[in-house]
Amino acid sequence: MAQHAGMPRGTDHAGMDMLSLAECLDHLRAETVGRVAFVQAGEPVVLPVNYLFYRDAIVFRTARGEKLEAAWRRSPVAFEIDGFRSISEDGWSVLVRGMAEVVDDETQLDELSSIPFKTWAKGSERPYWVKIHPDEITGRSI
Amino acid sequence: MAQHAGMPRGTDHAGMDMLSLAECLDHLRAETVGRVAFVQAGEPVVLPVNYLFYRDAIVFRTARGEKLEAAWRRSPVAFEIDGFRSISEDGWSVLVRGMAEVVDDETQLDELSSIPFKTWAKGSERPYWVKIHPDEITGRSI
Repeated sequence: MAQHAGMPRGTDHAGMDMLSLAECLDHLRAETVGRVAFVQAGEPVVLPVNYLFYRDAIVFRTARGEKLEAAWRRSPVAFEIDGFRSISEDGWSVLVRGMAEVVDDETQLDELSSIPFKTWAKGSERPYWVKIHPDEITGRSI
Repeated sequence: MAQHAGMPRGTDHAGMDMLSLAECLDHLRAETVGRVAFVQAGEPVVLPVNYLFYRDAIVFRTARGEKLEAAWRRSPVAFEIDGFRSISEDGWSVLVRGMAEVVDDETQLDELSSIPFKTWAKGSERPYWVKIHPDEITGRSI
């Protein structure tokens, strides 16, 4: 991972305060909706997902489609969460970069299916679990 | 654009309700924070920005950095906004796909600098305006 707990906080190239890894992990554990970005035919796509931060990885359910195809290919993906407040004009964001894969290990699937986890989408079943293994976790506050 | 006002609403491959173009445009005009995704060395990156939907394009200010580099290259980018409510477990998202460019036309810069527009970031100046011309606007509700 690019950051380690206890690493001193700094600022990025644009002068924004960086969050510590511990702060990033707290946000990842607290939120329930994030956005997955992947590359499709050379172009970026972003889609929101209900997710869970489980055993140091991002996991979410999906139906067939773009998100699943990116995962099958073990593609590099980005995952973003944020929180902004209009009144105080401040906020934070966390960016996770890593590889996506569809979970096909039976033990892991049993474990995941035992977790109380709910996707809000009512449209169709989402039988596949996708996991993003973080290679880098960074966060900023503004 | 992929959708036209008045086009019948449908569902996507995962059974989620599609928003009409008019609904997507209403959201784009109402929100102030969105997320830009771009491809950097083959990998996707997502960063939040304060933006303005101005003359049918997404515009935002930036300092030097990744977001600017993507724009200089006239790269394909994705821009996403969303709104989710935990209590009712519903929400919507809008995805804009298009090309990013740095605004260097003097007339446009004068026009943009006359608009009351504020970025929340306090860290450093953001002297550059980036514009995303939408090729496709799609929205979903869950």
